[in-house]
Amino acid sequence: MSSKKHQGDFTWKNVPILKYKEEGTHFKDITRQILFDGSDDLKGQLRYFEIAPNGHSTLERHEHVHVVMIIQGSGKALVGTEVIALEKFDVVHIQPQTWHQFQATNNEPFGFLCLVATERDKPERPGKAELDELRKNPAVAQFIKT
Amino acid sequence: MSSKKHQGDFTWKNVPILKYKEEGTHFKDITRQILFDGSDDLKGQLRYFEIAPNGHSTLERHEHVHVVMIIQGSGKALVGTEVIALEKFDVVHIQPQTWHQFQATNNEPFGFLCLVATERDKPERPGKAELDELRKNPAVAQFIKT
Repeated sequence: MSSKKHQGDFTWKNVPILKYKEEGTHFKDITRQILFDGSDDLKGQLRYFEIAPNGHSTLERHEHVHVVMIIQGSGKALVGTEVIALEKFDVVHIQPQTWHQFQATNNEPFGFLCLVATERDKPERPGKAELDELRKNPAVAQFIKT
Repeated sequence: MSSKKHQGDFTWKNVPILKYKEEGTHFKDITRQILFDGSDDLKGQLRYFEIAPNGHSTLERHEHVHVVMIIQGSGKALVGTEVIALEKFDVVHIQPQTWHQFQATNNEPFGFLCLVATERDKPERPGKAELDELRKNPAVAQFIKT
């Protein structure tokens, strides 16, 4: 049995707080904790991401699916061509090759679980053509951070 | 994109509240909602179970792994040969062939996410020999409901 006791502030006993990604300027103020790292019969990884106020994840897309549940605070996300508001316990499925970016827009930390396959493809960031396409929607143009 | 909006009371828009199991007297006052039902690249199912005060899940074991996170209330669980207290955002991994039972012991609803493989073996309930073995521990004997 392996239990991970919550310590009251969205950290878990013996679970290290990791960098979101090793490097880049395309994300801001976001941490990662791995709550489940897959097993023989369950080839998924369950992570907790926390974005500090005004921070954001990378704008990206990939073939693998994300299943996200907000568990702290609120914020917004680009999902495909829509900017959606997300509150505690909302669930979002991000389908393959769907542009997405999470942002802590509400002056509070924005924390969410994210389930992915253990083996997955690398994310792709948008090039100029993709950004031009995304920015055709004014709400998206105003929202995204690259 | 498929989002499941939380409705404020641990129900989600367009997500039906299902029976925990079709029949049996080995569980009490527990419901099930399916938040993610697997995809080609992510062969896992994410469910939300809610146990009403004094209710409980079936005492059982199986080969497949559970990854559980409490998201409402508190309660207790038998995991293997231990009875553990569980509070909001605690995470428990239930390893293969580990006896387990969740109970809403604290006069409040006890709600948790449970991630499993989409394809999984059927649970087994304890026979007399297994119950005798489990009951050698007085704390377990007092806890379990069959």
